[in-house]
Amino acid sequence: MKIGIIGLGLMGGSLSIAIKKVYKDTEIIGFDHNDQHCIEALEYNLVDKVIDDINDFYGVDILFLAVPVDGIIKIVKQLSKVDKKTAIVDLGSTKALILNSVPTDIRQNFVAAHPMTGTEKSGPTAAIDNLYHGKAIVLCNIEDSGESQHQLAKQIFTNIGMKIFYMDAKEHDRHAAYISHMPHALSYALANAVMKQEDPKAIIALAGGGFRDMSRIAKSSPNMWQDIFRQNRQDLLDGIDCFAGELNRCRELIAQEKWDELHSWMDKANRLHEIL
Amino acid sequence: MKIGIIGLGLMGGSLSIAIKKVYKDTEIIGFDHNDQHCIEALEYNLVDKVIDDINDFYGVDILFLAVPVDGIIKIVKQLSKVDKKTAIVDLGSTKALILNSVPTDIRQNFVAAHPMTGTEKSGPTAAIDNLYHGKAIVLCNIEDSGESQHQLAKQIFTNIGMKIFYMDAKEHDRHAAYISHMPHALSYALANAVMKQEDPKAIIALAGGGFRDMSRIAKSSPNMWQDIFRQNRQDLLDGIDCFAGELNRCRELIAQEKWDELHSWMDKANRLHEIL
Repeated sequence: MKIGIIGLGLMGGSLSIAIKKVYKDTEIIGFDHNDQHCIEALEYNLVDKVIDDINDFYGVDILFLAVPVDGIIKIVKQLSKVDKKTAIVDLGSTKALILNSVPTDIRQNFVAAHPMTGTEKSGPTAAIDNLYHGKAIVLCNIEDSGESQHQLAKQIFTNIGMKIFYMDAKEHDRHAAYISHMPHALSYALANAVMKQEDPKAIIALAGGGFRDMSRIAKSSPNMWQDIFRQNRQDLLDGIDCFAGELNRCRELIAQEKWDELHSWMDKANRLHEIL
Repeated sequence: MKIGIIGLGLMGGSLSIAIKKVYKDTEIIGFDHNDQHCIEALEYNLVDKVIDDINDFYGVDILFLAVPVDGIIKIVKQLSKVDKKTAIVDLGSTKALILNSVPTDIRQNFVAAHPMTGTEKSGPTAAIDNLYHGKAIVLCNIEDSGESQHQLAKQIFTNIGMKIFYMDAKEHDRHAAYISHMPHALSYALANAVMKQEDPKAIIALAGGGFRDMSRIAKSSPNMWQDIFRQNRQDLLDGIDCFAGELNRCRELIAQEKWDELHSWMDKANRLHEIL
């Protein structure tokens, strides 16, 4: 099999590691607009070779787009020369706008995917083993993808250990706002709330596991997340408003010293973990 | 050395494990108002024996209060019969109200401590190795503690691998609101925001590491956290308001599509991790 990966950072690099473990006879060809990333990707053996023109991906069986979501929209417009059989799979965190931007002549090639995994780090040096194993991946509007492209993408994601979910792109974006995008906004806001205190160092010196966990994703790349927030703007605003309503309820119960109601509200939150 | 521990849950049980590793010739005596906890603490070898009257701690070198913060306030009022030399160390997450409630005749015995560690679990079965190792512990208003009591507490916490910080109780409570109490409120609110959606199971099925981390402490005991929220009410409200201000700023930048300003705001949040 011949595989192309555009974007050799955390997502693309880790995907390459995962695929190489399962598919031994595979050539993986990479592309990254950042020269340093290309050098590192070769150095860390993430890809077998790198190319400097995306038209040179002609003939690959599957081409993954592992770049920030605005980059995906730019790149899909340049892929018209791709082989009719090639599957093009994007790994973006938003789906509706990306699918709207896919040119009609390659729509059959295209499989819209969102792997629900990542870390707060970025670049080829952040690529890790097992980033994808055991994680969920959402495939959207699959009825518009070609059957062979769908099956190849499904086979690869299944073989690297992912759990596949199917969803409408708009439904995906609503869910992703709650499970991923809005929590990122919270983590950034938490970090900034502490940083604006008089002596943040004295506060942060006391950080235990709870704070470390809650603030971890506040380290995520602003370039990447600015694009996601823009592309999923309305769902994200709805998610933030819903969260703010819950936090305000908590605040009012504390302010009004309604401790029994606060207890019930906390009890309800506990129940999340019966599902998670 | 003879050590007493009141409260044989996560904090008390894990403390016993840590102390036994370092101090081989130590007798650890436990007390818990929950009979099942007493049985489990003996079964898991967390303590050498349990007693059923807190007056029987007479003669211990050091007595740890590892119960929820309202329990600490009740218990300190029953400890007047304690030996003059005994150190009494509470491990509560709040400090000002607890210190205000310590009777004058045992104030010299008392060392107010807050170990910045824990998990979302509770009870003796949640006790783990290394809960305290490498973590921060805050000792408050130490000038009011007896010198020998302070030194013994300091020696034990240092020997189990903790980093000691000294602070005024009010300053501690302000800091703890930002680094621990307010983040717990956020986590509960996040869990409830997702749970009130139309199909929470479909959303939660997609949870990746970010959401899992952010919602982990929403599993914490409502009994324990209701007390903490009540005892540190004003600092917590201030912390929630400060956070809500930051989240609202994020919301407005998104609503008004001020993407460059949003990027700078995220950049600022990134800097937390230069300190953390």
